[in-house]
Amino acid sequence: MREVTIAIDAMGGDHGPHVTVRAALNLIDASDSTNVVLVGLKDVIEAELKVHRAATGTRLRIHHASEVVKMDDPPAQALRYKKDSSMRVMADLVKRGEADAGVSAGNTGALMAVSRFVLKTLPGIDRPAIATTLPSHTGRTYMLDLGANVDCTADHLLQFGIMGAALASAIEQRDRPRVGLLNVGEEDIKGNEVVKRAAELLKASGLNFLGNVEGDDIYNGSVDVVVCDGFVGNVALKSSEGVARLIAEELRREFKRNLLTRMAGLIALPVIRAFKRKMDPRRYNGASLLGLNGVIIKSHGSADAFAFEQALIRGVEEVRGGLLRRIAEQVGAYQTHHALTAPVMAEAAA
Amino acid sequence: MREVTIAIDAMGGDHGPHVTVRAALNLIDASDSTNVVLVGLKDVIEAELKVHRAATGTRLRIHHASEVVKMDDPPAQALRYKKDSSMRVMADLVKRGEADAGVSAGNTGALMAVSRFVLKTLPGIDRPAIATTLPSHTGRTYMLDLGANVDCTADHLLQFGIMGAALASAIEQRDRPRVGLLNVGEEDIKGNEVVKRAAELLKASGLNFLGNVEGDDIYNGSVDVVVCDGFVGNVALKSSEGVARLIAEELRREFKRNLLTRMAGLIALPVIRAFKRKMDPRRYNGASLLGLNGVIIKSHGSADAFAFEQALIRGVEEVRGGLLRRIAEQVGAYQTHHALTAPVMAEAAA
Repeated sequence: MREVTIAIDAMGGDHGPHVTVRAALNLIDASDSTNVVLVGLKDVIEAELKVHRAATGTRLRIHHASEVVKMDDPPAQALRYKKDSSMRVMADLVKRGEADAGVSAGNTGALMAVSRFVLKTLPGIDRPAIATTLPSHTGRTYMLDLGANVDCTADHLLQFGIMGAALASAIEQRDRPRVGLLNVGEEDIKGNEVVKRAAELLKASGLNFLGNVEGDDIYNGSVDVVVCDGFVGNVALKSSEGVARLIAEELRREFKRNLLTRMAGLIALPVIRAFKRKMDPRRYNGASLLGLNGVIIKSHGSADAFAFEQALIRGVEEVRGGLLRRIAEQVGAYQTHHALTAPVMAEAAA
Repeated sequence: MREVTIAIDAMGGDHGPHVTVRAALNLIDASDSTNVVLVGLKDVIEAELKVHRAATGTRLRIHHASEVVKMDDPPAQALRYKKDSSMRVMADLVKRGEADAGVSAGNTGALMAVSRFVLKTLPGIDRPAIATTLPSHTGRTYMLDLGANVDCTADHLLQFGIMGAALASAIEQRDRPRVGLLNVGEEDIKGNEVVKRAAELLKASGLNFLGNVEGDDIYNGSVDVVVCDGFVGNVALKSSEGVARLIAEELRREFKRNLLTRMAGLIALPVIRAFKRKMDPRRYNGASLLGLNGVIIKSHGSADAFAFEQALIRGVEEVRGGLLRRIAEQVGAYQTHHALTAPVMAEAAA
């Protein structure tokens, strides 16, 4: 299996090295052909390694970076004034090819700004997007964008479709992932002007585009990729989290109602636990910053070591799945397809 | 208690009189001071009444209407060519004051078009909106718009806030309901231009506006009213439904895994049932068409008698809660507040 090296922003997130170092150690323990570079304050990282009685070596290196991007640093400030931050140096390592992917639990805005500045966007991509993975009845669904782009054009949505298809094919080894456009109804006449135009572009793109989908299609397995603007995607994701929390809370309350229900709860505990493991949001941690000339993964800021390790694994999967090559191929295929079909379609329309 | 008469589009919905007649009978059984007018094909309604061994009387009347709006009739066609439809005649009864509210499980687009044509909008309201009720950790949340308006201006969102506050105060008997604006973050700088401008308008409106909220705030009880455009609202609602269905399905699957888990499921059954009752979406059936000069409730097309009865009860509650008066008051209060504060604010800005 191909050796993969992940650069880790060891200082990022709510818990910093306390979480990132443990996750890194777990990753290299679990998988032979992965290496990590822990980027950040050398002393702090070394102290954390000592806690775990671990040492650096060929598979685990430390790369010192003297500054730390705080969770509330404005992106522009992180970019301009913290040129030796662990986040920035992580991106630099990816840029120089010293790492195959970078993973950070730091401030999303800063990570996007820094990554975009350092790595630039891929040819044919105007704006990077953030893609997340969600559970579905049949497996997993990839949704983008998640908050990076609140005002999108139809062209941006088309590019999200292209990148999302590349991501799903890289991770799921699926040939022509099914792409849907998030809308308020399945009919072509539904939705605002941007979405209607995006549907036309996606239809003519050569992607395996199934048309408009609705919010519930994110979870029912009818498509592999759901395309939307960052505003809508963020609302869909946060609403879903809210309702899941409400359901969990109400279920807990019912089981705690009285002695009898508590006993029923004890008996059902193994089932509830298995269910919880399956639906554990930590398993889905790791959002992809797509459209950059490099693989960058954003972990939740509050991730624990298990969750952060999933983000690291996602980075490894994207590298092994050839994400960047696949995006370039999809862009190329689109441009070829478009060059071939556009004149015909223009003629048909005339 | 004030007598309330509900006009029912008896032919609407997937099941027509089979559901609407039973729900009407349940309603008048359960509550002394409510009357119903079943609007639709007289023969069909009478036949259905016979099934239930019920007869017309002062509390239950039939109003014949010779046409039926189908679930897939285009709104414009329903409006133009079916002037004697049960939906249209229901709205006419509300218009003429022969009923206090109208309830239909028919085609949403047609119901909105017909209601708007017959009843007109209230002064100060540009566009009607559809508001739904959702469960929260502390009670209920009102969200609007739900699909009627996919391209909204900041002024529209302000009006949704005003109408939503009137609705929450009418149903919950709450003095100054807390209003939030659905956005991708709590900071003022977040979101697209329309949402930013709407936040300014809502802040200056005199409403109890708490600022931006995120998708999870729909369910956590932090506000009473969530304002958004119809596209975002629809996606939030459908995503929530999707994830709730996924959770229910996965939980069922875990309990069916083997003999042991099936036994645990049997023991936990009363708890699961109590939980299901509490979260039963049928209890939240009945969306309000707000901003019309009349109370109109839209039931899910697939509603059963229990669900449809909840929509009827919602109509009764809106009438008793003085919804129309409250919207007029809120619009008036806004206009007064605005007339008083706008010059001061313009001066401050100058």
